[in-house]
Amino acid sequence: MNLSLHGNRVSTVALPIPGPGRGSARRVTFIGGEMTLAIRTVLCDLLGIEYPIIQGGMAWVATGELAAAVSEAGGLGMIGAGNAPPEVVRKEVHKARSLTSKPFGVNVYFMSPYTEQVIDMLVEEKVPVVSTGAGNPGKYVPRLKEAGAKVMSLVASVNLAKRLERAGVDILVAEGMECGGHIGEIATMPLVPQIVDAVGIPVVAAGGIYDGRGLVAALALGAVGVQMGTRFVCAKECTVHPNYKRAIIEARDRSTVVTGRPTGHPVRVIENKLARQFLELERKGASKEELEALGVGKLRAAVVDGDVEYGSVMAGQVSAMVKKEETCREIIEDVMNGAERVLARLSEIRAGSPVFR
Amino acid sequence: MNLSLHGNRVSTVALPIPGPGRGSARRVTFIGGEMTLAIRTVLCDLLGIEYPIIQGGMAWVATGELAAAVSEAGGLGMIGAGNAPPEVVRKEVHKARSLTSKPFGVNVYFMSPYTEQVIDMLVEEKVPVVSTGAGNPGKYVPRLKEAGAKVMSLVASVNLAKRLERAGVDILVAEGMECGGHIGEIATMPLVPQIVDAVGIPVVAAGGIYDGRGLVAALALGAVGVQMGTRFVCAKECTVHPNYKRAIIEARDRSTVVTGRPTGHPVRVIENKLARQFLELERKGASKEELEALGVGKLRAAVVDGDVEYGSVMAGQVSAMVKKEETCREIIEDVMNGAERVLARLSEIRAGSPVFR
Repeated sequence: MNLSLHGNRVSTVALPIPGPGRGSARRVTFIGGEMTLAIRTVLCDLLGIEYPIIQGGMAWVATGELAAAVSEAGGLGMIGAGNAPPEVVRKEVHKARSLTSKPFGVNVYFMSPYTEQVIDMLVEEKVPVVSTGAGNPGKYVPRLKEAGAKVMSLVASVNLAKRLERAGVDILVAEGMECGGHIGEIATMPLVPQIVDAVGIPVVAAGGIYDGRGLVAALALGAVGVQMGTRFVCAKECTVHPNYKRAIIEARDRSTVVTGRPTGHPVRVIENKLARQFLELERKGASKEELEALGVGKLRAAVVDGDVEYGSVMAGQVSAMVKKEETCREIIEDVMNGAERVLARLSEIRAGSPVFR
Repeated sequence: MNLSLHGNRVSTVALPIPGPGRGSARRVTFIGGEMTLAIRTVLCDLLGIEYPIIQGGMAWVATGELAAAVSEAGGLGMIGAGNAPPEVVRKEVHKARSLTSKPFGVNVYFMSPYTEQVIDMLVEEKVPVVSTGAGNPGKYVPRLKEAGAKVMSLVASVNLAKRLERAGVDILVAEGMECGGHIGEIATMPLVPQIVDAVGIPVVAAGGIYDGRGLVAALALGAVGVQMGTRFVCAKECTVHPNYKRAIIEARDRSTVVTGRPTGHPVRVIENKLARQFLELERKGASKEELEALGVGKLRAAVVDGDVEYGSVMAGQVSAMVKKEETCREIIEDVMNGAERVLARLSEIRAGSPVFR
């Protein structure tokens, strides 16, 4: 019996700490019946997913295979379109569809020369979720929504968040500067509540989130779910070069650095020879052109060729927490079970019980 | 009747959302009796305080008056010793003692020329809590503990956290790069769980924390409490120049910048003419000496003289959330009542109830 819980107090029933199992949904018997307990938020309903976890649509990294594996495990898988032409992205969409019947999405990179054509393709293919970063998707929003897509936009500041809400975006992903790749300057902890206070649409937290502790912290800040990138790079279903995964697994707390700050395009990467070269050139006041030339093709070099010394190994500050390769299902189960344990611990703290002592 | 809750399940009793009142402690009737509910953690017992909130011991800003007001309101007030000679700090200790009988602490700045003498004075005065930043307090720890003080150290990396645990420190304050003043590079969200996993002593979260959402997020990440700086700068009992408070109250999400990165001493300040001068010199590759010379006396200029254009207005990324002057009691009540509301909301989410929908 799966009870409807509207307006009910059953959420406060004492819970055992969850054992291993599939995700966090499980049956609990209590006086008066039995019900399914699971952490669910409005994000789950909006996107038609089981758990409020989105996998970041990282260029080169987020293939149809990875997206399908995340969606199959109950999260929202994302394909990263990056700079790829529409037919290449379409193949990934078909790949994902061949592997899952669950919803997934595509991240569109607005600096790509193919933005228009990729959008056309997504409308044709009726991809259920489209996320956008690095630019204002305003003019495409009505078309995408007409085609039935939910539009989700990455934001790193309050002003952009407000503009995108006005443009009709459905969900905002507030991305803290601790995440990998292209970043803003505000960290997740102060960014999320500021954006939540500024808009009326659901906000997802991204940046610095690794496990159930991060998910519950995000919910506490007012988010309705999380987006995670770095941990999914090391998923077994992720097809990046093994060297890339190893670089993340071997990373320590201070292993990432930010290049590109002087030119206004900060990018977080794992420190390596390329990163040191960038920082050295920046210190010497190198021109924007010189720095941009140095960056060309470097993400591909790391992801595809496994050159983790002279390639760009984009990764977030949680890299140090990633200790091994796992399946997407293992990652999502760990996050959800961990979150249940944190919620149980927090419910104890309200009475000052020994759990926190 | 104040029940002992050891091993009890009463923490899961359904709670009304707290109304205005003194802090979060209040009586709730349930089947079998009545009890006092309050968010308490091991930090409260360790420091002898009511609420797990520490006020940052900011140099020039954190006077005996501010520390006493925070302690009187149930948190832990801190005096910032900065570069001041021991007799000046002693006066602040006496000031605090004249205003409160509750515990408070002093933050010792290890770059000060008076470190030794300030430590001697703290031992003499039997100040109950001593916090340390910018250096390893290792050699002073046994003396301070012998004198009955709890030693609390600011850390921004896992390695230093482990070293300080070995040195005998009682509490670590994990400080994310979103906080004001001298900072590290790791943000609070990824830093706190990494430090919690690395050590066995209690960890307090600092950086990016403004209200009850931040407190509960910190607890979710595994911290036992929070340290807040920026919001307390705008406390009514804080004696900084009104211009300094106004600069924080008028700040927006992207108003702070980080100077000092090229010289390895990053400092977060509100962007003003001085900050732009710093950043410009850094871009030009100015020498460490030149940059250091520019910084001399600038914090004092802002705090004491109110020069918020050519002075250093140290403040964190939560500045945008600070909207007004409040008493320390109002600040602490707001954080604790907000945290209760967040915990109530999170307990609902476990059953997917409408609160999060």
